Formats: sequence, structure tokens, C-alpha cells
Amino acid sequence: MNTELAKRRRALQGRLKQSGLDGLLVTHPPDWYYLAGFFGESGTLLVFPTNLTLITDGRFTVQAREEMKGVRIQLQKGALFESTGRFLKEGKHKQVGFDPARVSHGQFRMLRKAAGAGVRWKEAPGWVSALRMRKDPAELAQMRKAALLAGEVLENAFGLLKPGVREFEIAAEIEYQMRKRGASGPAFETIVASGARAALPHARPTAKRLRKNELVVLDLGAILGHYCSDMTRTVYVGHAPARVRRWYQAVLEAQLAAIAVVKAGVSCGEVDRAAREVLAGHRLDRYFVHSTGHGLGLEVHEDPRVARGQKARLEPGNVITIEPGVYLEGVGGIRIEDDVAVHSDRTEILTRVKRDLIEL
Amino acid sequence: MNTELAKRRRALQGRLKQSGLDGLLVTHPPDWYYLAGFFGESGTLLVFPTNLTLITDGRFTVQAREEMKGVRIQLQKGALFESTGRFLKEGKHKQVGFDPARVSHGQFRMLRKAAGAGVRWKEAPGWVSALRMRKDPAELAQMRKAALLAGEVLENAFGLLKPGVREFEIAAEIEYQMRKRGASGPAFETIVASGARAALPHARPTAKRLRKNELVVLDLGAILGHYCSDMTRTVYVGHAPARVRRWYQAVLEAQLAAIAVVKAGVSCGEVDRAAREVLAGHRLDRYFVHSTGHGLGLEVHEDPRVARGQKARLEPGNVITIEPGVYLEGVGGIRIEDDVAVHSDRTEILTRVKRDLIEL
Repeated sequence: MNTELAKRRRALQGRLKQSGLDGLLVTHPPDWYYLAGFFGESGTLLVFPTNLTLITDGRFTVQAREEMKGVRIQLQKGALFESTGRFLKEGKHKQVGFDPARVSHGQFRMLRKAAGAGVRWKEAPGWVSALRMRKDPAELAQMRKAALLAGEVLENAFGLLKPGVREFEIAAEIEYQMRKRGASGPAFETIVASGARAALPHARPTAKRLRKNELVVLDLGAILGHYCSDMTRTVYVGHAPARVRRWYQAVLEAQLAAIAVVKAGVSCGEVDRAAREVLAGHRLDRYFVHSTGHGLGLEVHEDPRVARGQKARLEPGNVITIEPGVYLEGVGGIRIEDDVAVHSDRTEILTRVKRDLIEL
Repeated sequence: MNTELAKRRRALQGRLKQSGLDGLLVTHPPDWYYLAGFFGESGTLLVFPTNLTLITDGRFTVQAREEMKGVRIQLQKGALFESTGRFLKEGKHKQVGFDPARVSHGQFRMLRKAAGAGVRWKEAPGWVSALRMRKDPAELAQMRKAALLAGEVLENAFGLLKPGVREFEIAAEIEYQMRKRGASGPAFETIVASGARAALPHARPTAKRLRKNELVVLDLGAILGHYCSDMTRTVYVGHAPARVRRWYQAVLEAQLAAIAVVKAGVSCGEVDRAAREVLAGHRLDRYFVHSTGHGLGLEVHEDPRVARGQKARLEPGNVITIEPGVYLEGVGGIRIEDDVAVHSDRTEILTRVKRDLIEL
């Protein structure tokens, strides 16, 4: 078996023992991939002190057997959470951990009923997420590739930006280029937001055509070998007026300030504050309506959150986005986003596209 | 306001009154779109007897105001479910419904705590899903377009299937063609599974090249105007041997048998059984490892489930997939899938690609 998988399992099994648990219920598919190399869509993974068991249905058993080493496969009988509860009861497990954010109210009730009074449920919030935050060298290597791929696709897209082109045509081309370069797909629906639409931080591409003298926000990411990238650049179609340049410089300054603060041991809230303070200095902080960034990995949004007041401290192996922006309703928006890896002795910027304002 | 949206809200508000509830918590984004025309990624929608309120964060407030009519927007303060609970407390709401499948164990605890003892929580499972199952004429019109688009893209893809082409190249081209035709994206990760990989019902496209004398399963769907399509055809690269033809004919016969049973008033379990019985007649039922189909609409998998023993009866307005398949480990797989709409007096097949075995 892959030694990295073995390490991750051992880390989790060590925590089980420390906490006096007999097992941990893992319901989130990216967590299965992280622990077992399996990426099915339906099932429950049970981590026990000496083995792992996946309960899944007939659609996934062959795939699971192919993809996973050292994991027992149990064919689901009846509803998934009922089947899982019964399995725990029959195995006479006594203390089982679960993540309250990953099990619905209805699923938990079903589990508890099927497992019976012999199983005691203990909350184990974010145990796998916490491991996933510290990327190992193989993960970092994959994330570098995913970030470079996103950058290439983004630079290629600059060539498409002309008055008259529709937002969704640009998005189509971006996602096609990702695929052609080996990505399994976009990490999220590509954002191409032009003119006043650029003031919506999460705009979906529409049939709107680019026009002269407007801002275009391009926010894209690729999934390559299961790992995500996520980056944004903002372009001006035409010669940018002075106020747009001022806003752009302020956002860029905020981004650089936040990146400069990134370091093992620093809290995520401090990184967020660095960006916010720069924008406040330009009286633009009230237009910065989201957080500075988020963790990135098997999912495009994962721990840690880089937001106001977050006390979690950065650790070597963390990969986060740094993406301040300003959004002026009716006018447009500017966002600049890069992916940053934290090392014990340095900060590595994974995305490699220049950040100067591009005017077309 | 759109009269269809108004009708849907009234239907839900009617049910609230009947059940003596003051409000219903709606946490699932496709449900917000269905009720309010808003497709943000984070928030809670509260349906009250005389109004709707969306609690969301700064990333979505502008978008929400633009997209929604007749919905109050409340800026989220602190954690989403805490903010929602507090809002209910301050509004002195007494009986609030929620869907236990759509709220996590952790979220529910937070809600309950923030809302305090004045709010009593009642389970209201699947209330919006139940409405969404009955598509109105505008929805059916949109789903016809999404299905036709998927069919065009599929027929176009047949031209790409040649020995030497990689699975992911075909998937890239399929998704690009969807986008070019106006889709906002694929409804799910396109499946292109060749040779032995076709025995995995949910295979992801890989770098494997098509070879002569193997089966290729193409399973794809597009999102067009927010509505999904989902269809599958299986192709043989070369001249199919007799046993492959026999399997193919059996799957086709099973699909036609299931479609023939589809009718308002018939249970979903009967539809599933029709397909299963045909395959049993060919001694292939043990290779049919999944259910016959599923509802389709704003999501690619929604109610009703067309599976063994399902008692829910089909109603006019339902749109379901019919997709029997056989999967022979180490050899390959065959699946044929179409989208079917149920009307009071007839069954309409939305996907329009011929079903004969295609040999290339």
C-alpha cells in the first residue's frame, strides 16, 4: 500500500486510541480518497484501530476493490445509514466517533436506532479535515501542477477577451483547455464576470458580451489528479481610468500585504486583517465583502478559513488562497487571487501569473 | 413576480398553515432557486405564511437582491445557523419546520440553541422535493431543451470514437460542445468508460485509449437554464460479437419494458421490476447492480427514486431516467438511458437519440 495512505491511517488510528474510541465514521467522499484512495459517491467508511471497512452499494463495489488496498468492502443492505448502524451493532463496537457537520440530523437518528444502545456516539469534529490541512510532499507536488495548469489556462484566456465575446464562450474555452491539459474538470464553475456583473463575487457566466471600458473578473481552478487550484485575475477591456487603477493598486497592495504575513505560527485572522487594513487605508474596506481566503486541496474550499478573527494558526503543509477584492455595485469588481503554500521556513506561491493590471 | 414562483410559494405556505407551522427552514440551494429564483451557495431561506426571508452573507446579498423578487434579504451575522436561530427567536416564531436530511447534526444543534426554547422544531421531510417532482409546463419546456442538447452532443461524440483516442479527450470534447451550445456545464462528470472500465457504473474518464473490439459507455448530461439532462448510450468499437449483441438486446428490451410501464398512478417499484424481470429472463439480472432510474430536474438526482420496492406513484409532471445496465467484471458494461416525462395521458421521451447498438 501507498506509504502516505498508511501514514494517514495510522495518524487517525492513533487519535482513536487516545480518545478511547473503537471506531470513526467517515462519511465525506474526499476523506475516503484521502484515507483509502477511493472516490465513490455513496458509502460510509469506518476506521477501526486495526482495519478500515467501506460499506457501499453495488455500483461501487468493483471500483472500490480496484482502487483500495487494505480496506474491507461490505455490501450495503437496505438504507446506507441503517446498514452502517447494524454493522456496528453486529461488530459489538462500543464508542464510535462521528463528525456532526458531515452527518445529517436524519442520518444520525437512523444510525443511532440501527446501532442500538450498545454503541455510544462521540463527536469527533473535523478529525480528517485536520489531517488534510497538512499536505505531504506528494500532495504539494500535485497542487503545484494543478496551480501551474490553471495559470496556463488563464494566460491563454487573456487572448480571448475582446469586445463582443460572450462570458459563457470564454468560460467554455477555459474549461476545455483545462481538460485538454489533463484536468478532470474545473474545480468550480468558472467565473467570467464583466462590467457591472463583476460586482457579484460569485457571478455565473451569462450570454452578456464583453464591452469596451469595463472590468472582467476571471476566477478559475482545475482539478488535476484529484487536487484543486483556484486563482483570479481582473482585466480591463480598454485603457483603465484613474479610479480603476487606484482600486486595482489597492487590491494588489492588500493581497501582497496578506501574503507577506503568511507564515507558520501566524493566525489566519492576522492574514485576513493584513488585507483588510490596507483596504481600509484606501477607504475601500466596506467594499471587501468576503473573507481573504480559504484552504485548498482535495476540495476547493476546505480548512483553514482565512477570515476575520480566525484563531487557527498556519502550519507547514497548509495551502490557502489569498484573494481580497472590492465590489462596487453597478460599476464592477476587482479580485486578485493566488494559492500559497506554507513551509517551515518560507512561503511558496503556487500560481505563477503576473499580477499587474492587464489592459486589452 | 413570476407567476410560477408565486404558485410554488403559495403551495408551500398552504401546507405550512395546514400543519400549524409558523415557518419552514429551507437550506438546500436548488430549493431556493425553485422558490425564489436565487442560486447562491450559502444561506438559509425561511418561508413564512406571508413572506420569504433569505439570510445570507455579503458575497451574495447583491446577487440575491438582483435575482429575487418578494424576498426579504437579511445579512447574516456570525455563523449562519446561529444567525438563523437568532432571527427566529427575535421574530417570536413558535413552530418551525425543517428537513432532517438537509440539516447536519451540528447545524441543528446550533439552530436549536440560538433559537431558544420559544421555537419548537417540527420535521418537514422533503416538502420542497415533493413540489419539485411535479414539473410545471415551463420546467418541462426547459428540460426538453436540455435533453435535446445532450442528444446532439452525444451524436457529435460518436464521431470521435476511434481506436487510440483517450477517454478524457472525448469527455473534454463532450463538455466543450455542451458549453458551446449554451449549457452552463455538465450535470455531472461525463462518463466515458471503455473496455473493462465500462464494467464500473460510475467510472471517471482516464488516459486510457480506446481499443478495437471493446465496449464504450458514454453517460452525459447538460445543465441548461438550471435544468439537467442525463443520458447514456453504449457503443462497440468494431464489429460486436454475438454475446455482446445478446447482452445489448437484453438491456434494450429491459429499458423498453420499463418505459412501457411508466404511467401516472404506477409505482416506481413496478417500473424498476419491469426492467429487472426482462434481465432475469436473460439470466443477466445479477449483473444489473443499480436501480432503474431516478428523478431529474434542477438536480441530476432527485425524487422519485425508481428502485426496487419503491411505493411512490408516478404523477403527471414527473421526469425520470430509465437506465438499466449490465456490468461484467473484467469484460465491460452496457447501459442505455433516456429521460422520460409523465403526463396525465401519455409518456414523453425527452432524449431523442436512436437506441440500436452502434458499431464503429
